Amino acid sequence: MQTIVQKYGGSSVSTTKKIEKVAKSIIEKKKQGYNLVVVVSAMGNTTNELIKLSLEVSKAPDKRELDALIATGEMVSSSLLAIKLKDLGFDAISFNAFQINLKTNGIYGKSSISDIDEDIINSQLKKGKIVIIAGFQGISDDNEITTLGRGGSDTSAVALSVKLNAKCEIYTDVDGIYGVDPRLYKEAKKLDEISYEEMLELASLGAGVMHARAVELGQKYNKEIYVGLSCSNIKGTYITEGLEMEKRAVSGIAVSDDDIAINIENIDYDINLIAKIFTNIAKANINVDMISQTMPFNNKINISFTVPKADTNDILKLLKTFISFDNIKVDENITKFSVVGMGMKDSSGIAARLFEIFKENNIEIKMITTSEIRITCAIDSKYKEVAISNVAKFFDL
Amino acid sequence: MQTIVQKYGGSSVSTTKKIEKVAKSIIEKKKQGYNLVVVVSAMGNTTNELIKLSLEVSKAPDKRELDALIATGEMVSSSLLAIKLKDLGFDAISFNAFQINLKTNGIYGKSSISDIDEDIINSQLKKGKIVIIAGFQGISDDNEITTLGRGGSDTSAVALSVKLNAKCEIYTDVDGIYGVDPRLYKEAKKLDEISYEEMLELASLGAGVMHARAVELGQKYNKEIYVGLSCSNIKGTYITEGLEMEKRAVSGIAVSDDDIAINIENIDYDINLIAKIFTNIAKANINVDMISQTMPFNNKINISFTVPKADTNDILKLLKTFISFDNIKVDENITKFSVVGMGMKDSSGIAARLFEIFKENNIEIKMITTSEIRITCAIDSKYKEVAISNVAKFFDL
Repeated sequence: MQTIVQKYGGSSVSTTKKIEKVAKSIIEKKKQGYNLVVVVSAMGNTTNELIKLSLEVSKAPDKRELDALIATGEMVSSSLLAIKLKDLGFDAISFNAFQINLKTNGIYGKSSISDIDEDIINSQLKKGKIVIIAGFQGISDDNEITTLGRGGSDTSAVALSVKLNAKCEIYTDVDGIYGVDPRLYKEAKKLDEISYEEMLELASLGAGVMHARAVELGQKYNKEIYVGLSCSNIKGTYITEGLEMEKRAVSGIAVSDDDIAINIENIDYDINLIAKIFTNIAKANINVDMISQTMPFNNKINISFTVPKADTNDILKLLKTFISFDNIKVDENITKFSVVGMGMKDSSGIAARLFEIFKENNIEIKMITTSEIRITCAIDSKYKEVAISNVAKFFDL
Repeated sequence: MQTIVQKYGGSSVSTTKKIEKVAKSIIEKKKQGYNLVVVVSAMGNTTNELIKLSLEVSKAPDKRELDALIATGEMVSSSLLAIKLKDLGFDAISFNAFQINLKTNGIYGKSSISDIDEDIINSQLKKGKIVIIAGFQGISDDNEITTLGRGGSDTSAVALSVKLNAKCEIYTDVDGIYGVDPRLYKEAKKLDEISYEEMLELASLGAGVMHARAVELGQKYNKEIYVGLSCSNIKGTYITEGLEMEKRAVSGIAVSDDDIAINIENIDYDINLIAKIFTNIAKANINVDMISQTMPFNNKINISFTVPKADTNDILKLLKTFISFDNIKVDENITKFSVVGMGMKDSSGIAARLFEIFKENNIEIKMITTSEIRITCAIDSKYKEVAISNVAKFFDL
């Protein structure tokens, strides 16, 4: 009998009414003759509320204890779902991480899964039970409770589906993956499928429907992941290896307003100084993303780079120890605009076409970075909508 | 180094402010040079709220899942307390039942503790850590989460103090054990000590400061239990074996308004009928407490007995299948009034003195039951205050 691992996100189980809806949806699948393993997130805003409690007792809560605290959210929702299923006449059993030996590498707050005892789950499935698993949590080899990071229940679900040789279905509050965020572009088209690589580029760029580590795990084990709307028959999106024949030049656009650009102007072209600056930025745990540098002119150069908005004060304080205030300019109105597509590997003209569209619309590109399947341009935020609609139209997203 | 097991009840950790207060109280003891193991209940009303959630999804929640659900309350409070202690600069570590192998007999909702791995706790104490334990929970041999029944954290604390050869301190929202409930009798005196047996009689009769099973466990292992007010230096009460010399005739009064009296009047003196009635009451899981029967007169008798108020409808429905409606009278205004004292074992005059006090105050005794150290009388509820104040005054409670 085919096993399906379903995962329901926090918004899908935020109330007992919604838990009932989810239970009925699970039963529908069960009646179709599948074995069902269901991973649940914590109800609604529970995890944030638990974190808030911890911050009431400490500004910097101990990481071990914080993990033990926030892991309780999924225990609550998984028990309630099992109670509802039993109430509706379908045998169900919930498990916490320690009960199925869901082992991790033991890093608090961002563990990765190392193993799961699938025999415990399979023996319950054989008895006809629906197995509910508390997502987001695992235990270390020392029986310490460790969580997988925000959104980690996605990773729980993919890991389980790999171990159980099961189909993997992620149910959430959006009905699939779009080439462009529908909140930013109304005519956005839903994708029938998207490759792991594309999804990873989109996820890390802030179009995050899915936990990036879950997609990586799917890619590693070539496990197809279905993403769809909870308790609905609307067709969602498959995250797959991607078929060679169907490669699209561009699959999606991701935009992010979370960074600022720092422009250091007219400084000496001193390679030691530049190295020292970026070494110190790294030491301060500030994440530099895009970097561009002008050619030396009269032995002077300009350097620009982006850092997260949240680090604005820290980066300025740090830079002023090396460079005169007058040479530093901060641009808070930048948008990182990315197009992602497997097709870029083969089709070299994508960048050229993108630049043409920008040129036609008088959009200045301030910085550029690329990966094998992605081009990212920093542009002025005021051009965001124009860029999205024109690029989306051109590539039919 | 002497180890102390402290237990803090739900009202003592109902807010993060109160958790801070408890943490400071723990630190005070720690500074006095003790090893500290702290058992906590769930914050305030958490357990009831979790039960309420379960009732929203099912009228009769599955017992296994309900236990897994309500066990989370203590995980939250124990993590928060550990976070607060670490925040205040004292090393602490919290443990759930599965992490210290706190094993039970596996009965959902009312498990008893079978074993605890004290080595795990002792190794943390040796490192100087304050060990926090989630109360109320244990795991079965099959790794099932099982709870110990309402108030079960008391039992967790006593079991731990037995295993760790530690002192046992139960902190709650009352400052000790009184001979009479101070809410019912303002001049009530606090007891310096009380025997296990007396405490058990008082606990089971509704004067329940302490979980009865915790007291039984203390008695079994002769573990002295201190009961006192959280975060205070007010001297509380020791529950001990009880010193022969200091036996009081009467240690306490317990009253309960939770029962009704059923009077079956003027029925045939038919021993088969009577047996059948009480067999069927037992089968219906209705708990009959006091029973009295008049002497046969013209082969007719009266039988009276008490049952919990909650069972009123069930008992009437059941009785009507055997006896005519006209012969059944329900008395809803009865109070079970008990005096408890180790001294009764030796001193036979206690009952006589009690009845005299009742007679002087025109209080009619409707039924009587006794144990070795207790006399219970069912009286009309309207005499409750008079009975309490006169008996308390006479026995100096």
